[in-house]
Amino acid sequence: MDERIHEHARILSDWSADIGSGDNVVMSVEDGAHELAVAVAEQVGKRNANLLTTYASGEIDRAYLRAHSEEFDADPAHAKSLYENADVVLALNAGHNANTLTDVPHDTKQAYDTATQDVREARLDTDWVKTIHPTRALAQQAGMAYETYQDFVYDAIIRDWERLAAEMDRLKRRLDAGSELSIRTAAGTDVTMSIEDRLAVNSAASVRYDSHNLPSGEVFTAPTDTDGTVVFDLPLTYYGERLERVTLTFEDGRVVDYAGDNEDVLEEILTTDDGAKRLGELGIGMNRGIDRFTNNILFDEKMGDTVHMALGRAYDACLPDGRSGNQSAVHVDMIADMSTDATIEIDGEVIQRNGTFQWEDGFET
Amino acid sequence: MDERIHEHARILSDWSADIGSGDNVVMSVEDGAHELAVAVAEQVGKRNANLLTTYASGEIDRAYLRAHSEEFDADPAHAKSLYENADVVLALNAGHNANTLTDVPHDTKQAYDTATQDVREARLDTDWVKTIHPTRALAQQAGMAYETYQDFVYDAIIRDWERLAAEMDRLKRRLDAGSELSIRTAAGTDVTMSIEDRLAVNSAASVRYDSHNLPSGEVFTAPTDTDGTVVFDLPLTYYGERLERVTLTFEDGRVVDYAGDNEDVLEEILTTDDGAKRLGELGIGMNRGIDRFTNNILFDEKMGDTVHMALGRAYDACLPDGRSGNQSAVHVDMIADMSTDATIEIDGEVIQRNGTFQWEDGFET
Repeated sequence: MDERIHEHARILSDWSADIGSGDNVVMSVEDGAHELAVAVAEQVGKRNANLLTTYASGEIDRAYLRAHSEEFDADPAHAKSLYENADVVLALNAGHNANTLTDVPHDTKQAYDTATQDVREARLDTDWVKTIHPTRALAQQAGMAYETYQDFVYDAIIRDWERLAAEMDRLKRRLDAGSELSIRTAAGTDVTMSIEDRLAVNSAASVRYDSHNLPSGEVFTAPTDTDGTVVFDLPLTYYGERLERVTLTFEDGRVVDYAGDNEDVLEEILTTDDGAKRLGELGIGMNRGIDRFTNNILFDEKMGDTVHMALGRAYDACLPDGRSGNQSAVHVDMIADMSTDATIEIDGEVIQRNGTFQWEDGFET
Repeated sequence: MDERIHEHARILSDWSADIGSGDNVVMSVEDGAHELAVAVAEQVGKRNANLLTTYASGEIDRAYLRAHSEEFDADPAHAKSLYENADVVLALNAGHNANTLTDVPHDTKQAYDTATQDVREARLDTDWVKTIHPTRALAQQAGMAYETYQDFVYDAIIRDWERLAAEMDRLKRRLDAGSELSIRTAAGTDVTMSIEDRLAVNSAASVRYDSHNLPSGEVFTAPTDTDGTVVFDLPLTYYGERLERVTLTFEDGRVVDYAGDNEDVLEEILTTDDGAKRLGELGIGMNRGIDRFTNNILFDEKMGDTVHMALGRAYDACLPDGRSGNQSAVHVDMIADMSTDATIEIDGEVIQRNGTFQWEDGFET
């Protein structure tokens, strides 16, 4: 077995999920993640935890959901009790075909999700971590050869997370202390937003940081009162539709103008509800192992030298106790390149120029 | 997908497991059984039951068990509650390598089994069914080409089970009413045993018959007072050791002489404990879809035109309430060919000659 698979399993079990002796672990193995599952099982054994393995397959979900003809039972007791009695859930994503569920009616998926909400919440109440095992289908989706894609994935995952967490903490403290944040790029972005009374989240790929994705590597907050224009250089896929060259113009926190390649889809997003016209998130990508766009949001939004902003719902973790953030049924992340001719300022002070932070070597004052 | 996989899934869900609307179903998918799992998921959906899918992999078990270094926790709550809240468990066996667990220490396996006994009992308390999906590894183990092996497996599984159950019931009633059973073959078997006060089990591959294997197709009972000689023409594998040409001689129910190719293994079995020298089971194979030996006991013991006898433990289902049968730590099935020059008699009446039952066409009086 590729030694990197073992290293991935060690990082997942130790840094990310913090598995201890006696923990009840559910390992969810997606079709295609078998090798990683074997390596993770070894780590779970080494930690003397208790392993139960589930199987996640889009093809099984598709066959089941399409055949079911009545109302779904609410929160079946076998699934609910499994997660209620679990301490850790490890989701090993992989997949052989990203389009497997495209011919399941949207209403069916939604009805199933609604009926099984308590099962999902029981799962999210554990120390859960989602990670990814490189498959040929994911390489194809990323537009890369399989071996190159494996290198890419392991560069993103096998990092010195403790060091990155410390660096991200530095940025978090700057954001927490700041009031106004501005971004300018040569591509045409010139935007200012308030970050006052907001808490930034250090998403360091560990349950100890309340961060549940491996890889991770971003610091994000929930801005308000956005004004100006943002040009998103990088494409995104929204329900199978590709959006490119999106430009949004904000006044008093709301989108007042927009343009892009697939404008009707953009309009659909913006008119979902009132909150869909406001930003719910500003994230700053800090994982320099992720050095290119691969059409997979788990990686794209953590890319070094990028920022992303999401239209729609804000995360509660960014809000002081008792305050509520932007509400919406959508949360659509869009990414802008910050590697050249670009700055991030907090209260008038440049904290990142051309992707390099103020405290890093090579920062041009 | 091969239409036979869909037919297999229908028989499993309907005849064997009798899945109803609202049932909580656990489907255990062994590495290699993915296609069958997709077909079964469709059937579970059609019956509006609730599906949770687990993953069974010898490689995962091996990695976990070898790495674990402390005492195993007794009956982890996540696994136990899953099965306690399940109505049906479908085990889809397949496997890529029958030898995967050979380098896990026997003591480790035993310690794990002992610690998780309540989990196993909770699973056996459901309407569970074990079946098999043909893989290349199983074809290799059977000494057959993959496509030929697929034909073999589906011939054994896709049968008119209702009709076979009725036929087996006919034999069961004869066995229940009888007192003494004798078997004679040209190969040298000449044995008599008591079946008085015993109940025969109609193993018809359905939970309605308390029969949990698909395929099945045997009627078995728990004989006593065996006298005479049995020649087992067909080989068996016992913990990786091949036993062939086994001959056992009984007096007053106990083995008094034995011979065979691998005599030390045979001696090891016979000296396990006192009950290992007595028969715990006589089974009569009635699945004529199984027409050859494939080195897999799930199929071999149900083969048409054969009988099998097991040294060791008797099944409670064969005993009247409150009576106990032969006790032993072992239960080793051995098979004899009945297709030529062979008879089964009950109380002096020939009920099978050369594999044909008394009530069938072609029976020679």
